[in-house]
Amino acid sequence: MNIITISREFGSGGRELGKRLADHLGYDYYDRQIITSIAENKGLDADYIESALENHAWQNVVLTYRHSFSLSAPSTIQTDLLLEQKKVIEQIARLGNDCIIVGRNADILLKEYQPLSLYVCASMEAKIRRCMERAEDAEKYTSKQMEQTIKRIDKSRKTTRRILSGSEWGHPLSYDLTVNTTGKDLKSLSFAVADFAASYFRRK
Amino acid sequence: MNIITISREFGSGGRELGKRLADHLGYDYYDRQIITSIAENKGLDADYIESALENHAWQNVVLTYRHSFSLSAPSTIQTDLLLEQKKVIEQIARLGNDCIIVGRNADILLKEYQPLSLYVCASMEAKIRRCMERAEDAEKYTSKQMEQTIKRIDKSRKTTRRILSGSEWGHPLSYDLTVNTTGKDLKSLSFAVADFAASYFRRK
Repeated sequence: MNIITISREFGSGGRELGKRLADHLGYDYYDRQIITSIAENKGLDADYIESALENHAWQNVVLTYRHSFSLSAPSTIQTDLLLEQKKVIEQIARLGNDCIIVGRNADILLKEYQPLSLYVCASMEAKIRRCMERAEDAEKYTSKQMEQTIKRIDKSRKTTRRILSGSEWGHPLSYDLTVNTTGKDLKSLSFAVADFAASYFRRK
Repeated sequence: MNIITISREFGSGGRELGKRLADHLGYDYYDRQIITSIAENKGLDADYIESALENHAWQNVVLTYRHSFSLSAPSTIQTDLLLEQKKVIEQIARLGNDCIIVGRNADILLKEYQPLSLYVCASMEAKIRRCMERAEDAEKYTSKQMEQTIKRIDKSRKTTRRILSGSEWGHPLSYDLTVNTTGKDLKSLSFAVADFAASYFRRK
């Protein structure tokens, strides 16, 4: 079984790259499905779960996440959801199908499966442009506001990763391959990354 | 014509990766040849040139290197060699053959040719191990001394790049693709990167 994990900067096109990779390679693709799966298991609203996971009170979590999980403070709904997310991601791996998982520090959770871990980045200018082109309500935002949103989301991802794993989000040594999408056509690039991945797993 | 440039951390295996890529893809390979070419043109010793370029008095160079070259202080032998190196790299590109160039900030010098720029990194532990295995006089060094050597060389590369180009050495946004060789078999990895490159150029 081959697993590709994708960490990405907000607006870098990492999700689109992941979808295209899944398409080229014929792999299962997991992203939002992880949240809806938690929602079903817990009988909670998916949007609520996403928001709770993004705004987690990390200070309550004692850091043995890589191995197991322990809490220094009474469980909160967020830590409960985080455990559920961990469970869902481990269930995905146990299915044994080749797959791509976007976000959620899946590379750390599934280390024992030796995933190919990708990090996708782009210049701030490119990320703002991409977000402005794609947001349904983009007309509500100035570039400056969009930049602040990107920074806020990525800061939260960085903090989460550091706390859960001690690994530095966005640092090239935290991943196998870092892809810069700035100025690139994502469709073409996705074929090149797919060829890398196919070759990588063939010789692993 | 396809050009691949490789920036690499000392001990990361970037040079070996470059050689293997050249082999797989049938590209010309340039590394030390650039220095020997300067030596021939200038009638100087190659080792002297290498050392002079590595210990350049950058403070004397005014930074329009990307476009042309201008000097604020009387020319030194080092700035003269740097200009010669630039000329040699530009000559290589004008040959029109597919090629791989290791080091020397070739990605910046040859920007107009739209090279595929790679950065090769590895954990300090992996780099020390690789250097200790390969150095002919490795028994003379402790791990600590090897670490200091690695840091000194990479610091010089970082400074050179920043001064010559304003681009940050080692930052994922300064390259198209960043490859982490830690714990990887370079032979297998080189096939995967070659497949990436072939696909990348086919669709460019």
